[in-house]
Amino acid sequence: MAEVRNKQVILKDYVRGFPKESDMIVTSSNLKLKLPEGSKGVLVKNLYLSCDPYMRTRMSYHDTSASYVDSFKPASPISGHGVSKVLESGDPNLKEGDLVWGMTGWEEYSILNATQGLFKIHHTDVPLSYYTGILGMPGMTAYAGFYELASPKKGEYVYVSAASGAVGQLVGQFAKLVGCYAVGSAGSKEKVDLLKDKFGFDDAFNYKEEPELDAALKRYFPEGIDIYFENVGGKMLDAVLLNLRDHARIPLCGMISQYNLEKPEGVHNLMQLILRNARMEGFVVGEYYHLYPKFLEFILPHIRQGNIQYVEDIAEGLESGPAALIGLFSGRNVGKQVVVVSRE
Amino acid sequence: MAEVRNKQVILKDYVRGFPKESDMIVTSSNLKLKLPEGSKGVLVKNLYLSCDPYMRTRMSYHDTSASYVDSFKPASPISGHGVSKVLESGDPNLKEGDLVWGMTGWEEYSILNATQGLFKIHHTDVPLSYYTGILGMPGMTAYAGFYELASPKKGEYVYVSAASGAVGQLVGQFAKLVGCYAVGSAGSKEKVDLLKDKFGFDDAFNYKEEPELDAALKRYFPEGIDIYFENVGGKMLDAVLLNLRDHARIPLCGMISQYNLEKPEGVHNLMQLILRNARMEGFVVGEYYHLYPKFLEFILPHIRQGNIQYVEDIAEGLESGPAALIGLFSGRNVGKQVVVVSRE
Repeated sequence: MAEVRNKQVILKDYVRGFPKESDMIVTSSNLKLKLPEGSKGVLVKNLYLSCDPYMRTRMSYHDTSASYVDSFKPASPISGHGVSKVLESGDPNLKEGDLVWGMTGWEEYSILNATQGLFKIHHTDVPLSYYTGILGMPGMTAYAGFYELASPKKGEYVYVSAASGAVGQLVGQFAKLVGCYAVGSAGSKEKVDLLKDKFGFDDAFNYKEEPELDAALKRYFPEGIDIYFENVGGKMLDAVLLNLRDHARIPLCGMISQYNLEKPEGVHNLMQLILRNARMEGFVVGEYYHLYPKFLEFILPHIRQGNIQYVEDIAEGLESGPAALIGLFSGRNVGKQVVVVSRE
Repeated sequence: MAEVRNKQVILKDYVRGFPKESDMIVTSSNLKLKLPEGSKGVLVKNLYLSCDPYMRTRMSYHDTSASYVDSFKPASPISGHGVSKVLESGDPNLKEGDLVWGMTGWEEYSILNATQGLFKIHHTDVPLSYYTGILGMPGMTAYAGFYELASPKKGEYVYVSAASGAVGQLVGQFAKLVGCYAVGSAGSKEKVDLLKDKFGFDDAFNYKEEPELDAALKRYFPEGIDIYFENVGGKMLDAVLLNLRDHARIPLCGMISQYNLEKPEGVHNLMQLILRNARMEGFVVGEYYHLYPKFLEFILPHIRQGNIQYVEDIAEGLESGPAALIGLFSGRNVGKQVVVVSRE
């Protein structure tokens, strides 16, 4: 049986405040390319790894009340969503050569003890890396949050924060498919241009250049906001609350602006939810995976026909993983941040 | 045509911070007991006036973004919900002697120019004052917020703040009717006893005696909270957010702890809504009045059969109005605060 050096991204210790590249190291250990006797899991070769904002919460120590997933284990490889190739399978539904996406390790090869969370990939006429984004967890997140929670109607005013990210870029395009008016915000001119020129948002702005978020929103939404797709939290949410239309909906997808703070910022304007008969609803995409087949049926034709644009920011090699992951929190990435471990 | 002295409660000027009895004066002016020529409104004699927390927001100057109702006009009589007797009607659907409830002036007699917001009272075998509370706006508020927004299920854990108030006492009893476990909080031993002994809450506590609200909630809800009926806002909401069960619902009815602050307190734990797939939904009862006939059909038998208890705090005479209204904000009232102007 082959033994390989298995390159891995290790979390050195729990992180407080803003994470740094040096909080992780890339090292390697020996691995026998063989499933343990009687295993019902799979041995996989990891191809693409997904950098997602929620992973920040796993870098800190927390009990179960602080996240829907456990903390990473210090001195162990971190984990996340990825696309992998099955090398050996103890699950009769998966066989050698199958491609899957789901939770895997940040390493070249992983032994996954359970296969419940893995999705077999059936459509390979689209780039495989898409299964870390538009065709994977972030795609389902955008779909569930927008269509299921926000119940959009034609002509409604939709605002998306972190709009050039993996989820935001899709929400904006979904909004346009429904016939909504869509405005996005992001943190650089390059991203704002992307929103308008590539993703077809009706308008977009750089939140970093707005001294008053409330004033900015009043400029972009003189009629107010029907749907706010929340990715950032904090001050932005507070400003949005002052600009709601009656019966507004706010799907809470994430709050990336808060993940590096010791204590989250206070949100002061919740009374507006009462005055506007408005709804704010948090969700974890895991609750919506039963819709995944329906989602694929919806999104694949749009991708093939070029109705939906999708932008990835590709980092080459597992070594580039720590910088790519950290870059999410300074907004360095443009589009969905992916790490390529191997292209096949 | 008779001319009378019409006693009135006047707001002296816009209020900032905690309102005082002296912010209002009781005075009187002459009134001809006659509708203006061609009026489609009604001339009414006011019998019972309702003291409601939302009235605080009307005492301050605000633009339309701060409330669903206009500010009171300084130097004019304030207004609110009340039960009145029609003396003269320009509306063919109402006639002399009819009893109505809806918005009226804090005065002995009012000329109401529009009748759209008035509900004719058909059931007089229950105390008329009930139409300021259990059979009026607060009753509909409890009904809509609990049954329509919170979709309660048997066995769920329900927490009600300001639980001995007009709305809270009903929500707790509705929760018990559904078969939920209900805990209420209030601000005195007398009220806590009332919750347990009179209204049948499974448990109750005095929030003023709890140095740590989070710890208190963990004690009363070791399994967490499915439904939080929000009447107070601020720190209580923040503590509740740390104790949610998965798929929790939070109907936002009011935030009485915030109404006297220049700037509302910050709420820090909204991320919990995401982790718990939880929903927070504001509402204004005006959106639900189409359910009023259905509500009456539901609640009247419960009142007649004694299944639902209802406690009022009755202040005698319009002169007692300012103190009664201000008392809401220090929690002086025990049960629904009503002002009797006249018993017939």
